[in-house]
Amino acid sequence: MKMNESRILDYIEDNFAVQKDKRLLIGPGDDAAVLKTKSGKVLVATTDEMVEGTHFLKGFDYPEKLAKKLLRINLSDLAAMGNVKPLSCLSGGGMPKNTPATWIKKFIKTLNKEAEKFGLNLSGGNLARSKNLHMYLTVLGEADKSEIITRYGAKPGDELYSIGSLGESKAGLEIFLSGKKPKTLSEKKLIERFWEPKPMMEAGNILGRYKLANCMLDNSDGLLRSVKIIAGASKRQVVLSLKEKDISKELKEYALSKRKNCLDYAISGGEDYGLIFTASLKNK
Amino acid sequence: MKMNESRILDYIEDNFAVQKDKRLLIGPGDDAAVLKTKSGKVLVATTDEMVEGTHFLKGFDYPEKLAKKLLRINLSDLAAMGNVKPLSCLSGGGMPKNTPATWIKKFIKTLNKEAEKFGLNLSGGNLARSKNLHMYLTVLGEADKSEIITRYGAKPGDELYSIGSLGESKAGLEIFLSGKKPKTLSEKKLIERFWEPKPMMEAGNILGRYKLANCMLDNSDGLLRSVKIIAGASKRQVVLSLKEKDISKELKEYALSKRKNCLDYAISGGEDYGLIFTASLKNK
Repeated sequence: MKMNESRILDYIEDNFAVQKDKRLLIGPGDDAAVLKTKSGKVLVATTDEMVEGTHFLKGFDYPEKLAKKLLRINLSDLAAMGNVKPLSCLSGGGMPKNTPATWIKKFIKTLNKEAEKFGLNLSGGNLARSKNLHMYLTVLGEADKSEIITRYGAKPGDELYSIGSLGESKAGLEIFLSGKKPKTLSEKKLIERFWEPKPMMEAGNILGRYKLANCMLDNSDGLLRSVKIIAGASKRQVVLSLKEKDISKELKEYALSKRKNCLDYAISGGEDYGLIFTASLKNK
Repeated sequence: MKMNESRILDYIEDNFAVQKDKRLLIGPGDDAAVLKTKSGKVLVATTDEMVEGTHFLKGFDYPEKLAKKLLRINLSDLAAMGNVKPLSCLSGGGMPKNTPATWIKKFIKTLNKEAEKFGLNLSGGNLARSKNLHMYLTVLGEADKSEIITRYGAKPGDELYSIGSLGESKAGLEIFLSGKKPKTLSEKKLIERFWEPKPMMEAGNILGRYKLANCMLDNSDGLLRSVKIIAGASKRQVVLSLKEKDISKELKEYALSKRKNCLDYAISGGEDYGLIFTASLKNK
């Protein structure tokens, strides 16, 4: 059997019972880990990585783009846990021998500048030699335990919500990979969606603080997969309804130019990093 | 200018002033970051990575060995910060497409089993595809701020101490890389020093708790480099005195068989992961 991330993750979840460690409130399987500390607050921790040849092309010379995206996809995992305040981050990575010093300086400078925008700083890290370039980041946040939203709590009668762009990142990646300069403002915006996804910190904060959502995760693998995760985690059936009006005009324009269905991008495209949650807001 | 880890680290330390972020008590430059949280305790965080072709040979099929070492070298950084209690860890990494699922299962199982021995659990992580194998770990711990020992505090008149093995890891690596089976118990023990370094948690705890050391770091880059770091960080001159009686009989035996000077291993060999500190214990 070859490596298959979701199967491996199932294995991890099945084998590392959280119950044994009383400090570990939420372990492997959610967007981030939640740890009880000596304070009343809980610590929220997540990690993500970008690898040459997998998440970006070999020889890709935009350390700033990588730094921005790496930070944002990690923060998105904190946002998906509810009202979490970013605390700090540690970054590490491996670089080929001939990587110019300016590359790593630009990467770190951008990472810290971007982190500051979101209220945290780079506090540590590690550098190693490696044949192929890869950079990782671990982000830490603090929260009140009662303001955490897991992916497990969908209730019968809940409605399904999505905040943030849908399918735009995938379209942006297509345009970017074509190697052609973006022809329109819309195309430029779609590329930006891919490289600079918006972590939905404010939305996550509000949903957590006022306990509005029963379950939540960030939309990193496409709407369909996200909804399947919610259904599986809560052992509920979820009806997904998506209409053309839910799609941005930029994506509609692009899909039309490619004679493709814009809904397909929204449903199966990944890396949008919006928030998907269920709630019964009508009763509020 | 090509990548040079120590120069890059200097750049990071020079450019990311800790003062701006009041929660960041100790930032880049020490064995671990120290963060003020909402509790009276501080959070101690460190990260380290092992990369194929740099820290282990390509095609090296011992996930258990990698997991054990990766955990231990991270814990060693916590130990070097004083009385730190391990809290949790997050692991991530990149694996080639054809990595067998058993490989990663063995890795994770060993990592968690080893972590439990030291009082923590794996709480999260990330898996990615990568051309060359690499695994990283971020370890978190908690401490009282007053029981943290940095690398900056050496005082005039302090004596220099080292706890843990000296030079044995380098000798073990040589034997391991020779590809020959260890001929003696001593050789076996030296190889074990390389793959299963002992993080000096108890020593770090005592030194921190009773405030016995004025500065401390873990000996990851050899005694000479460690001492230079202490001297530089504290802007002091340090006299290093090392005698044959400070060397283990296993290393002496091995060095003799290779007609080498055992002191050279102790002084310039890396990855010993003992603790180097200065103190004036005579007055205690």
